[in-house]
Amino acid sequence: MKQFCVTLLCLLGLSAATLLAQDARIQRVDPTNWWVGMKDPKLQLLVYGKNLSKAKVSTRYPGITVGKITSLPNTNYVAVDLTIAPTTKPGTVPLLFTVGGQTITHNYRIAARDRSRDRVQGLTSADLVYLILPDRFSNGDPSNDKFPDMADPNADRNNPYYRHGGDLQGIINHLDYFNELGVTALWLNPVIENDQPLTNEGGAMRSAYHGYGFTDHYRVDRRLGGNEAYKKLVNEAHKKGIKIIQDAVYNHVGANHWLLKDMPAKDWLNQWPTYTNTSYKDQPLLDPYASELDKKVTLDGWFVPHLPDLNQKNPVVANYLIQHALWTVEEFGIDAWRIDTYIYNDLAFMNRCNQALLDNFPNIHLFGESWVGSVPNQAYFTRNNIESSFKCNLPGGMDFQVYNALNETLKRDNPETVYSVLAQDYLYKDASRNLIFLDNHDTDRYFSVIGEDMNKFKMGLVFLMTSRGIPQIYYGTEVLMKNFKDPSDAEVRRDFPGGFADDKANKFTAAGRTKVENDVFDFVRQLGQYRKQSAALKTGKLMQFLPQNNVYAYARYTDAQTVMVFMNSGKKDATVETARFAERLRGYSRARNVLTGEVISNLTTLNVPAQTALLLELQK
Amino acid sequence: MKQFCVTLLCLLGLSAATLLAQDARIQRVDPTNWWVGMKDPKLQLLVYGKNLSKAKVSTRYPGITVGKITSLPNTNYVAVDLTIAPTTKPGTVPLLFTVGGQTITHNYRIAARDRSRDRVQGLTSADLVYLILPDRFSNGDPSNDKFPDMADPNADRNNPYYRHGGDLQGIINHLDYFNELGVTALWLNPVIENDQPLTNEGGAMRSAYHGYGFTDHYRVDRRLGGNEAYKKLVNEAHKKGIKIIQDAVYNHVGANHWLLKDMPAKDWLNQWPTYTNTSYKDQPLLDPYASELDKKVTLDGWFVPHLPDLNQKNPVVANYLIQHALWTVEEFGIDAWRIDTYIYNDLAFMNRCNQALLDNFPNIHLFGESWVGSVPNQAYFTRNNIESSFKCNLPGGMDFQVYNALNETLKRDNPETVYSVLAQDYLYKDASRNLIFLDNHDTDRYFSVIGEDMNKFKMGLVFLMTSRGIPQIYYGTEVLMKNFKDPSDAEVRRDFPGGFADDKANKFTAAGRTKVENDVFDFVRQLGQYRKQSAALKTGKLMQFLPQNNVYAYARYTDAQTVMVFMNSGKKDATVETARFAERLRGYSRARNVLTGEVISNLTTLNVPAQTALLLELQK
Repeated sequence: MKQFCVTLLCLLGLSAATLLAQDARIQRVDPTNWWVGMKDPKLQLLVYGKNLSKAKVSTRYPGITVGKITSLPNTNYVAVDLTIAPTTKPGTVPLLFTVGGQTITHNYRIAARDRSRDRVQGLTSADLVYLILPDRFSNGDPSNDKFPDMADPNADRNNPYYRHGGDLQGIINHLDYFNELGVTALWLNPVIENDQPLTNEGGAMRSAYHGYGFTDHYRVDRRLGGNEAYKKLVNEAHKKGIKIIQDAVYNHVGANHWLLKDMPAKDWLNQWPTYTNTSYKDQPLLDPYASELDKKVTLDGWFVPHLPDLNQKNPVVANYLIQHALWTVEEFGIDAWRIDTYIYNDLAFMNRCNQALLDNFPNIHLFGESWVGSVPNQAYFTRNNIESSFKCNLPGGMDFQVYNALNETLKRDNPETVYSVLAQDYLYKDASRNLIFLDNHDTDRYFSVIGEDMNKFKMGLVFLMTSRGIPQIYYGTEVLMKNFKDPSDAEVRRDFPGGFADDKANKFTAAGRTKVENDVFDFVRQLGQYRKQSAALKTGKLMQFLPQNNVYAYARYTDAQTVMVFMNSGKKDATVETARFAERLRGYSRARNVLTGEVISNLTTLNVPAQTALLLELQK
Repeated sequence: MKQFCVTLLCLLGLSAATLLAQDARIQRVDPTNWWVGMKDPKLQLLVYGKNLSKAKVSTRYPGITVGKITSLPNTNYVAVDLTIAPTTKPGTVPLLFTVGGQTITHNYRIAARDRSRDRVQGLTSADLVYLILPDRFSNGDPSNDKFPDMADPNADRNNPYYRHGGDLQGIINHLDYFNELGVTALWLNPVIENDQPLTNEGGAMRSAYHGYGFTDHYRVDRRLGGNEAYKKLVNEAHKKGIKIIQDAVYNHVGANHWLLKDMPAKDWLNQWPTYTNTSYKDQPLLDPYASELDKKVTLDGWFVPHLPDLNQKNPVVANYLIQHALWTVEEFGIDAWRIDTYIYNDLAFMNRCNQALLDNFPNIHLFGESWVGSVPNQAYFTRNNIESSFKCNLPGGMDFQVYNALNETLKRDNPETVYSVLAQDYLYKDASRNLIFLDNHDTDRYFSVIGEDMNKFKMGLVFLMTSRGIPQIYYGTEVLMKNFKDPSDAEVRRDFPGGFADDKANKFTAAGRTKVENDVFDFVRQLGQYRKQSAALKTGKLMQFLPQNNVYAYARYTDAQTVMVFMNSGKKDATVETARFAERLRGYSRARNVLTGEVISNLTTLNVPAQTALLLELQK
C-alpha cells in the first residue's frame, strides 16, 4: 500500500517530501518537530507550500509566541520564528496560517526533552571508535535494499558504484562483535537520505552509497532502514555500552535535495557566474598574504558538481542547518558529531552551530574533518593556542597529521616523524580530543599502505591504541581488509565478508577467519579489551621521549598506573638502556608485557625486537 | 717588541690575557671599558687577580657608586656591581681594590656613547645581506695570517682545516664589489678570537677557522686584524652604505677560553656526570609531553666536546654575556645581531639579553639560528602568535622553513611547498624580519643542491630577491661556487677565487669570470640593484596566489608600485590567464619585464616559459 502511494505521488509529479505535508497548502514544515527546554527558546520553521510567503501566522498555544515572519524570494516558502517558553507544556501546537482569506492549521508537535542518562554521552580517549560505511558492512534487512521510486533504484554487489544492501539492522546484528573487539563507539558514514541518481561526471562515476549528498535532512535513508531503524540502533547500541557518532555534512547537499527542486532563494546556494569548484586548499583561509578570491574559492567553490554548496551566510540557511543538528541529536540521542569537510564551511557559521550543540548537549563531542597539511593549520580548525582574530571553537579534529606521520614513520622505519608531530600538540587547546586513525573510507587501507608487512601492521595498531587521542579503526582492519583507492574509492570500501547472506566466508566468526586473520583479530581484540580496563590508556597523561636508534618510547600514566610502549621501527633488535626514562620508571621494578603476559623482572635494559612495539604495564 | 713580550709572558706561564692586566694583582677586568648613558645604569665588572675574592672596592668618582660585591668559588675572581649615574662625566675612574691591607688602583675608562647616525642602523627587508666566512674570503693583510704563540699556529690554504689567511682588510678591499652587487649588509661568521688548537675529535678534525669557539670575548681575532681592523671595517662599510651584522655565540665558548683555564666557578659551565652532548633537538622544549631530562639534554648538553656549554642560569655568567653584547654593539657600531644556535640557550636568559640590546639600541635587528623542522617550532623561537606560558622576544630568525621549502620546490618542480610555508606566516608576529636564504656556511651550496641547473638557480635567486623577508646570499653564489658538505664542511667554505694573492683567476672582476659566471653575476647584480630602488620589494606587502599548474604567482606592492613574480617551476611553458590576479592587477594595463626590459602591453594572458620566474613591474 505504501509502495503504491509512493508510486502514485510520483505519477502526480509530487516529490516524496510531499508525503509529509499536512494538507494541500502546507507541504512541509522543517524541523518536523521540536522540544520544550532547548537552550535557545527560539525556533525558526521553514514552511513550504504554494504561495505561502504572505501568510500571517498565529497560535494561541500557551507559552508559544509567533515572532518575525521572513518572506523568501520564492513565494512558496515562509520562515516563521517561534519562541517556546521554558514552561510550555509539551503537546501539539496548532499553528494557524492565514493567506488569501483562508486559514490553514498545521499541528506542530512539541515534546519534552529526553534526559535519559545513556543519551548524548560524548566521546573521549577512553573510547575505541569503529568506522563503518553502512552500505558495505552487513545487510540485516534485504527488504530495504532498493526502492524503484528512488533516483538510483539499483542494488548490485557486483557493481562498486551501486548500493550493496548494507543497513542499520546489519550493524545492530553485530553489536556483540563490537563488544568482543573492545569497540565502544561506532562512527557511521552519513545515514541521512541520499536520494541521488548514479551519474557520470566527466568520466568519473558518481554514486551516493557513501552518504555525503543529503536530499532530505529529516529522513534517514530508507535503504538503511529509515528513522526507526536508526533510533533502534542508537538504543540497542547504548544498551551494549556502545556509542553512536553521527557524520554531519553542512557544506553541501545532494543536487537532488528537495529544497533545490523549488529553491527558497537563489542565494540558498553559493552561486558563481560559471561553475567553480573549491580548490580543496585550506591555506588561503589562514595565509596572511592570501587573495580574497582564493579564500572565496576555498569556501564557496562547490565540492563537486553534484554536491551544491550551501550559502551559510544566508541566515535562513544557517538556522535550517543548526536546527537540524540540534534536532538530530535530541531526536536520536547521538553521542558525538563528526563534521565533514570542515574547512570549506563558513567558519563563523560553524562556531554558532558548534556552540548551539554544546549549549544543548554539554557532553557531546564534536570533531571535524580538516584534511590539511600541517599541525598549525589543523589546530587552527579546532580550539587552539594560536592568537588570531578568528578562533574556531570546535573541540576536536580528525588527526590527519598523526595519520600522515605514522604512515611515514612505518614506511621509512623512522619514528621521528610521529614523535615530532605529537611534540607540536602545544598548538591545540586539547589534542586528546582528536580522533587518531590508521586509515578511513577516504584513504588507502592501512594494511596495503605498509606493504602488507605484519610487523608494521601490529606496530601501528599498538601505537593507535596507546597514544594520545581517540583511536578509530576502519571496518575490516581487524580481518586484514586491504586495497588502495586506485582505481576507485570503492576499492577501500569493499563489503565486510560475512555481512551478506551469500558470502562464502563469515569473518565475523573465528571459524570463518583464516589463521592469520584470527591472529590479527585477536591482536586487535586484546588491545581493545586492555584499553577498556586501563586507566592509563583511557585517561592518563602522555610522556614521550626523544627517539634514539629507531626506538621511540612513551608512557601513558595516572597516579595509579603506568603503561609504556617501546616501538622499535628499525630493522635490528635493540637493547635499550632505560636510565633516561627514569621520570616514568621511578617506583617501578618490573613490568608485564601486556600482549604476551611475560613478566620482565629487571628494567635496567630492555630488549626490543626489530619492528616491534613492546607494550608494558609497569609493576611495583 | 710586542711579539717578544708575548713570548716572554708565555714562558712565565701567563696567558695572553695577562697583557691586559693593569698590575700584578688585577690581571683582567671585563668589560674592558664602558659608557655613560646606557639604559641600565648598572654594570657588573668581572675582576680577575690572585686572591681578589675578599677585596673591598671603592671609588670617589662622582656619579659612580659601588654596589654589591659578589665572591665566586674561585678566590681569584670577584664580581663588582657599579652604578653609573646618567650625569656622570666621561673619564677614567680610579677603582680602589683593598685586600690584605694593600690597596690597588684600577683605572677604568667610562666614555660618552657614540650617537652617530650611521651606527647601529638595523636591518630590514630593504637590505640584501652577503654572508662571508672571513678566513676564506680574501687576504688583505698577509702579515696576520698566523701567529706562533696561538694554539693553532698554522696557515695553509692547501689544508681545509687550517687557516687560509682571509681577514677583515680583505673584506674592506671589496666594499665596491658589494656595492656593485647591490649588497647592503655583510654578515660575517664570528670575528671574535678563536685561539683554539686543531684537534682530532673522534676521527673528525676540529678547527676554529669558522669562529664559533670564542676564547676571549673582548678581542677580535688577531688573524682577522683585531679590534682595530674591525672598527675600520664597520666605519668604511658604513661610508659605503653597507651595514655590518655580527655573529654572536652565547651558548658555548671554545675550550681554550681564558676564563676556563682558571674557572670562576664550576657552574660557569653546564656540568654533567659524564660528557653529554646536546641532542640537537628542539622538540623537547615545546613538546607538552617532553621529559625533563630530554629538555635538559637539549639545553645543557654540550654542542661538541671542544665547545663547553655556558651556564646562563648563573647570574654572573648571564651578566658577562649580556654586557659583552652591549659592549660590542656600542664599541664597534654593529647594525644587526645574528645569534648562533639559538634554541640551545637558556631562553629566559636570551629574552633578557635581547631586551637589553633593544633597550640600548632601538634600531638594532636581532635574528637567531633556530634550525628546526616546522614553521610553528621556528616561530616559537621568535616573537610569535602562539599562546604559551613562555614567549620569546626575538624579532627575527633565519628562515630554515623557507630554505627547506624552496629547495623542495625546485628539486621537485612543484611550487606548493614554498607557498604553503609562507601561508603559515600567521604564526609569526612579523615574518618580514626573518632572513631568507638559499644556502649558508652550514649547508650544501645551492648551485649543487639544484643539480647545477641554471634555470632553477635563477628561479631561486628571483624568489630570494623578491619574496618576503631579508634576503641573504652566501659568498661566491654569484660566481657559481658550488659543492656539497661531503666529505667536510670545508667543501662549502672554499676560498673565494681572487681573494688571495696567488689565485689564478680573480672572480671579483668581469675579466676574471667565465662567460657563464658573468651571466650569473650580472643576474644577481641586476636583481640586487633593482631591489635597491624598488619600494615594493623593500617595504611592500606580499600577496600570494594559489599555485596552479606549477605556476606560483605573487605580488609585492605599495600604493605606488606593484611588482609581480610568476614562477613556473614546471617543465612546460605555461600560458597563464590573469583574471584571478585581479586584486593586484587592477589599475595596471602593462608591465615591464625587469630582467629583460621587455614591455608586455597586454596582461590578459601571460606566457611563462618552463622553469622560469618572470619578474614584472606593473605599469598604468
